[in-house]
Amino acid sequence: MGETEIETHGIKPGERIDDLEWKGFRIIQNPSFFCFGMDAVLLSNFVRGQKTKTLMDLGTGTGVIPLLCAAKDKASFCTGLELQPEVGEMASRSVKLNHAEDRVRMIYGEAGDIRRIRQNFPAASADIVTSNPPYIAGGRGLANPDSTRNISRHEVTVTLEDVISAAAYLLRTGGSFYLIHKPFRIAEIINCMKKYHLEPKRLQFVQPHREDAPNMVLVEGIRDAGQGCTVLPALVVYGEDGKYTDTVLRLYGKL
Amino acid sequence: MGETEIETHGIKPGERIDDLEWKGFRIIQNPSFFCFGMDAVLLSNFVRGQKTKTLMDLGTGTGVIPLLCAAKDKASFCTGLELQPEVGEMASRSVKLNHAEDRVRMIYGEAGDIRRIRQNFPAASADIVTSNPPYIAGGRGLANPDSTRNISRHEVTVTLEDVISAAAYLLRTGGSFYLIHKPFRIAEIINCMKKYHLEPKRLQFVQPHREDAPNMVLVEGIRDAGQGCTVLPALVVYGEDGKYTDTVLRLYGKL
Repeated sequence: MGETEIETHGIKPGERIDDLEWKGFRIIQNPSFFCFGMDAVLLSNFVRGQKTKTLMDLGTGTGVIPLLCAAKDKASFCTGLELQPEVGEMASRSVKLNHAEDRVRMIYGEAGDIRRIRQNFPAASADIVTSNPPYIAGGRGLANPDSTRNISRHEVTVTLEDVISAAAYLLRTGGSFYLIHKPFRIAEIINCMKKYHLEPKRLQFVQPHREDAPNMVLVEGIRDAGQGCTVLPALVVYGEDGKYTDTVLRLYGKL
Repeated sequence: MGETEIETHGIKPGERIDDLEWKGFRIIQNPSFFCFGMDAVLLSNFVRGQKTKTLMDLGTGTGVIPLLCAAKDKASFCTGLELQPEVGEMASRSVKLNHAEDRVRMIYGEAGDIRRIRQNFPAASADIVTSNPPYIAGGRGLANPDSTRNISRHEVTVTLEDVISAAAYLLRTGGSFYLIHKPFRIAEIINCMKKYHLEPKRLQFVQPHREDAPNMVLVEGIRDAGQGCTVLPALVVYGEDGKYTDTVLRLYGKL
């Protein structure tokens, strides 16, 4: 399949091309799998990167986080790992679609398995690790634990501890791990990060409206850092007019 | 010194009597020691108590938390522990001032030492433990580490871990520990609470104004509970008009 075909017709049945609203980057998605949400946009924005850094995204799905981090110059090279071959292959086609092969790659299937990270990658080889993992603990009782959608949402193939332990393995001392997750699991997240020497250094809660409880939390942990955590002002998604706040519009490149 | 004298003249030089703004309760304070602040009011409000419960407050200072929890019917009996004899004796006089001896007692000096809790009190004997401990880690380098003010603010005589470990010792299974502290230490607090089987179940951040970062955090941990933490909407202290919000006025019994 040639470049031209990928740019125009290289998508498979059920797939669509969406604009990432940043430097013309686009992404292939399949709504029957799982489309990226605001959490991925929030997480890539939360990353404090530089053009000299290398970044690995664990459980990359559509590849939205490596693509956005590349578009936003948060790293010189971004790698997305994805266990599910059909999803990783689609993410790989998004890299080609953006002619970003020199800055982004997707590794998928067994090579992208978070639980086999120690066999597949050297320790302390990354400056930044990101993850937007399944939010729901456990996968027991699911009618279809093999569905792409369930694997993205439930801890069927990977637990929170698998993700954190893989991140700690990949990061050099001083490197940063960025996670977005549910506030309900904040104690578990902090405890597990400390267990693997990823000291929580920055927290930001995200809430739909000004007076709401948070429904997401962004966490930055630094490998082997000392104690002390900055809790940032909460990020509010909707204004009193029911529209996106300026903060969120800025994340989407609309302001 | 008779009851009448205490009610009217039983205060020592440098002391003053303040109104607790709740059911007529009053408190003796000495501004050269340390006067209670909004944190004590926030903490006693955060306690989910009942009139059947027993409560112990670790490092009670003026005794404001046991007195407020008694006034607000958060427990049937409240005990305040205080290491510093002159401060604990003053708190004890506040109990008498309120004729609350059947509901509140202050234990002070060596008997009120958090680090000797195991010698002085039986395990699993409390339903509720509260603490508004020193916020600042370590006491090294202080010009005067023995001053009452420094002992209240710096971890000179007691560390965060001392407080949490004493609370865990005192609480029965299912009993609640309530803490107010600085957000900067949230990771350390959560980690230490989990170490001592006080599972963080409720968090509330407190921020001066709507758009600010939080400057205090309220935490409830439940002895031997399962994982999962509710993060409440943040408590905002000042409105856009620079005055206390209705939420805060309600805490102070002004609404």
